[in-house]
Amino acid sequence: MPEIAGATKRVAKARYKEWDRCDLTYIEFATGTAVAGVTTRNICCSSEVELCRDNLKGGRARALVVNAGNSNAFTGYRGRDAVEAITRQVAAHLGCAATEVFVSSTGVIGVPLPKDKAEAGLKAAFGASVCSWQDVADTIGTTDTFAKGAKASAMVGDTRVEIIGVIKGSGMIAPDMATMLGYIFTDAAVEPAFLQQLLVEANGSTFNCITVDSDTSTSDTVLAFATGKADNTPLASFNDVGADAFASALHDVCRQLAHLVVRDGEGAQKFIEISVTGAVSDESARRIGLAIANSPLVKTAIAGEDANWGRIVMAVGKAGEPADRDRLSISFGATPVALNGLPVEGFDETPVTAHLKGQEIQIGVDIGLGSGHATVWTCDLTHGYISINADYRS
Amino acid sequence: MPEIAGATKRVAKARYKEWDRCDLTYIEFATGTAVAGVTTRNICCSSEVELCRDNLKGGRARALVVNAGNSNAFTGYRGRDAVEAITRQVAAHLGCAATEVFVSSTGVIGVPLPKDKAEAGLKAAFGASVCSWQDVADTIGTTDTFAKGAKASAMVGDTRVEIIGVIKGSGMIAPDMATMLGYIFTDAAVEPAFLQQLLVEANGSTFNCITVDSDTSTSDTVLAFATGKADNTPLASFNDVGADAFASALHDVCRQLAHLVVRDGEGAQKFIEISVTGAVSDESARRIGLAIANSPLVKTAIAGEDANWGRIVMAVGKAGEPADRDRLSISFGATPVALNGLPVEGFDETPVTAHLKGQEIQIGVDIGLGSGHATVWTCDLTHGYISINADYRS
Repeated sequence: MPEIAGATKRVAKARYKEWDRCDLTYIEFATGTAVAGVTTRNICCSSEVELCRDNLKGGRARALVVNAGNSNAFTGYRGRDAVEAITRQVAAHLGCAATEVFVSSTGVIGVPLPKDKAEAGLKAAFGASVCSWQDVADTIGTTDTFAKGAKASAMVGDTRVEIIGVIKGSGMIAPDMATMLGYIFTDAAVEPAFLQQLLVEANGSTFNCITVDSDTSTSDTVLAFATGKADNTPLASFNDVGADAFASALHDVCRQLAHLVVRDGEGAQKFIEISVTGAVSDESARRIGLAIANSPLVKTAIAGEDANWGRIVMAVGKAGEPADRDRLSISFGATPVALNGLPVEGFDETPVTAHLKGQEIQIGVDIGLGSGHATVWTCDLTHGYISINADYRS
Repeated sequence: MPEIAGATKRVAKARYKEWDRCDLTYIEFATGTAVAGVTTRNICCSSEVELCRDNLKGGRARALVVNAGNSNAFTGYRGRDAVEAITRQVAAHLGCAATEVFVSSTGVIGVPLPKDKAEAGLKAAFGASVCSWQDVADTIGTTDTFAKGAKASAMVGDTRVEIIGVIKGSGMIAPDMATMLGYIFTDAAVEPAFLQQLLVEANGSTFNCITVDSDTSTSDTVLAFATGKADNTPLASFNDVGADAFASALHDVCRQLAHLVVRDGEGAQKFIEISVTGAVSDESARRIGLAIANSPLVKTAIAGEDANWGRIVMAVGKAGEPADRDRLSISFGATPVALNGLPVEGFDETPVTAHLKGQEIQIGVDIGLGSGHATVWTCDLTHGYISINADYRS
């Protein structure tokens, strides 16, 4: 992974849980770093999310702190106290405004973040050696089974800029705005308002198009930081040279990160891509795709390697979007199994069975009504999901 | 179970699947029997559902045919042909209009109902001995693990009237209008329009308040038949003597049947009652309740006997309904675990743990905003659900 000039990373052990691993991430940014972000639409969001929203208005960031093991959600004024203590401590250390400090926490809901552990952890982080992106990706994780990162680069005029992303999340994934905790870093110079515009656009067709279990987290946050250290002419709109290339690279990193979250979905054995075409609009296609992707019956059928396309018909029908049973077509991999509302007579099950035995499943659904299309991604629903979630807190 | 005068029941083996059990139910009604019904809102509904809706306009029924093992959904014109052949055969046998014959089918989606098997099965049923309600409940079932029936009676003036209900269903349960296949029979004399009004009202707080897996079936149908053989003064509105008592008994049967479906939810080990109070309206309370009841994370926590109320907060927050994190209160059984947005300090976990080890789980959620309330019912999400549904079609 390339380094991002202007972003200095450190990790430490705050010991938010009974474990002996790093669980506090601290990243310092160069003065003038632009920041953009999208956060959960869950009404019962955490104090961290509220503070992020407030601080995003300023558009500038000097530091990011991520706590793993305790989400600090639903902890009322005591949770808020802990987050404000963290921002004060970092602001004093850096000599910056508290509103330039961004904090995220992830883990169990309903237990106030212990302020003393956070303070001691931060102090340790201030004195720690600079670490790698791998260390950051490891430290922000909780039930994740592997560290998740992605990169891309773009030419902005004559300047090559780098983009790095790290993300955590494997359950409680049905982003309605963002997903779990994701962080994107670039050395490009980008105006905050334009960075925000680009992040919102990328978010719509990446993080907002994945689902593991239809449950939307109270802590979902994706933040993008642009340090400007690449010294390109700052990007402020799509009229600027290199803006398209940068937007495309940013989208690429978001898509990679979103896919990694699905691949690490709790209990997931298969990665499922659902392409919906022929809907009345792109948004309608996305809703139909998510109805299929969230159907426990579709997800268990894929887990069982069963071409039970009847359950896909059911999911299309319950999506609440325009559809016509007698125009619907469905395929697995490259094989059509239903055309215009009828099973394909005597179709060869061999390629379908072979496709379903793989780990990358493609489902095609044509609604037959218009030109709206969308692709969404999910994973299968297995015994592993039940085992992980029936025994998480204890 | 009491008999219903004017309803004559027979079952037969159509052998829709490779099994040696009765799978075709045939019930004849006395001339003039009133009928009412509610059907699925799934857009991709079956031909049976379409025909039911058409025939309900007449308000009168002479026969009901229920096929088990094949839902005939998503089978296009061939599926429609089979249903029309059945109504013609019954109409010829009884000398009635084809529009007085109601047909339902349940089972795998996408395989046209074999017309020859239906015809032979019906012929066998015409010649079979009259059977019991237990036989009917057994014959309409598919993945159900027990036969489901309910009864109630009411005094209409000086006349005692009986109500019997049977139902099938254990997966693909998230009724948006009705649930799976349910049939209610009464000897009361009730005008079709009033019967329809009563059924819609009962449906709203019974079948439409249960969920097993958030998936809405393409075949959901509940029909109510009133033979009039009790010879009460026909009920036509709530102004009639006995109408309240009859409505209450009908509601009671619907509630019993709805609960039986949840208790037989695929893989279910626990019956969960979720009471939502303090919402801005009753409908808002119902939506919040269903968001909790459909959350895989809440359902797996209950399966694991884990008082993980943080997941309930998450589900309230994602419901899309007005809520305020800092007014939210949650209880398990009789024990409050969170009050006004904060965990109850040092609450005794003993009664909560004991409650969660039982088979009847009560979750109370107060939103703290208004006086809207609703109760919904669901079951836990277990390894059994995965096992049943990862290997259903094969």
